[in-house]
Amino acid sequence: MAHIKIDESLPGIRGLMHFRPETAQPMNDLAEVLLRSENSLSRGERELIATYVSSLNDCFFCQHAHGGIAQHYLQCDAAFIDRVKSDFMGSGISEKLKALLSIAGSVQKGGKHLTKEQVEKARKLGATDREIHDTVLISAVFCMFNRYVDGLGTSAPTDLSFYQNRGKQRAREGYAHYDPKN
Amino acid sequence: MAHIKIDESLPGIRGLMHFRPETAQPMNDLAEVLLRSENSLSRGERELIATYVSSLNDCFFCQHAHGGIAQHYLQCDAAFIDRVKSDFMGSGISEKLKALLSIAGSVQKGGKHLTKEQVEKARKLGATDREIHDTVLISAVFCMFNRYVDGLGTSAPTDLSFYQNRGKQRAREGYAHYDPKN
Repeated sequence: MAHIKIDESLPGIRGLMHFRPETAQPMNDLAEVLLRSENSLSRGERELIATYVSSLNDCFFCQHAHGGIAQHYLQCDAAFIDRVKSDFMGSGISEKLKALLSIAGSVQKGGKHLTKEQVEKARKLGATDREIHDTVLISAVFCMFNRYVDGLGTSAPTDLSFYQNRGKQRAREGYAHYDPKN
Repeated sequence: MAHIKIDESLPGIRGLMHFRPETAQPMNDLAEVLLRSENSLSRGERELIATYVSSLNDCFFCQHAHGGIAQHYLQCDAAFIDRVKSDFMGSGISEKLKALLSIAGSVQKGGKHLTKEQVEKARKLGATDREIHDTVLISAVFCMFNRYVDGLGTSAPTDLSFYQNRGKQRAREGYAHYDPKN
């Protein structure tokens, strides 16, 4: 049971977005711009950053929901997503994406944890200012979503196939017109 | 100097919002709904929650920017804002607001830090589900803003009168049509 009275048939953030659609809309607009709109980082890479940060924040719903979306975009298996979460340095992703995940991981701890050296390293590996900006913001945004979902004590399905099916749907439908009841 | 090339004459979040207006708009829409729109929590109370969380995250720009806005709405002095940040239990605020700040402080640490007992206490002191929801979300949202501002290494004016003057302007103009250059 969540800490407030929501429709318990809607897991994770869905029950909260249904409870308060006025705040849901700008949050979904932000997710749409940041995770789906035109970008030199692929949608899969951006969802992977979101998944990694949600895993650091130990948010079961978000790490599996966005892991399912990343898996669909990247056409990879769940084991690959798990490897990125537990040891991205050994996961076979590009050196640039490793540097960006390192940035995201520092920001997850707190903004001041990110060092100039980490940023310089990402830049040397080809990351642009816009990519560094978006990586920091994706990490910050998921520090928000994760706290929102867990702070209100929402429930999350334990059957992981739920998230893989939903991942395909979310990749198809996007965030901007998100309907928490569907 | 920030970690990315932004207009350094625009401090804190302003340089970032100018750099990436596409993500700035939904963030400002979210701030407008959450901090200013019709609510049983006053605008001053909501800005005080934002200020307290920003202080816990040690974000100089955000705690002073929103402290300045709170000070304007609450018609209090800067010493009162400082007291709330350092010892809200002894600051003379209402028992309900103390319970809500306690909720915000736990969510700042991480969503799972908030206990049922804290929520029950707030409810007994008159907090509604919507107020509890909005308190959790304000805390989560400022965990995002604070990481965004500090994660990208932005600068912040040290002269505190800057924030008090800006606070009046922000209270007058709101967030939805925020112009980072003005």
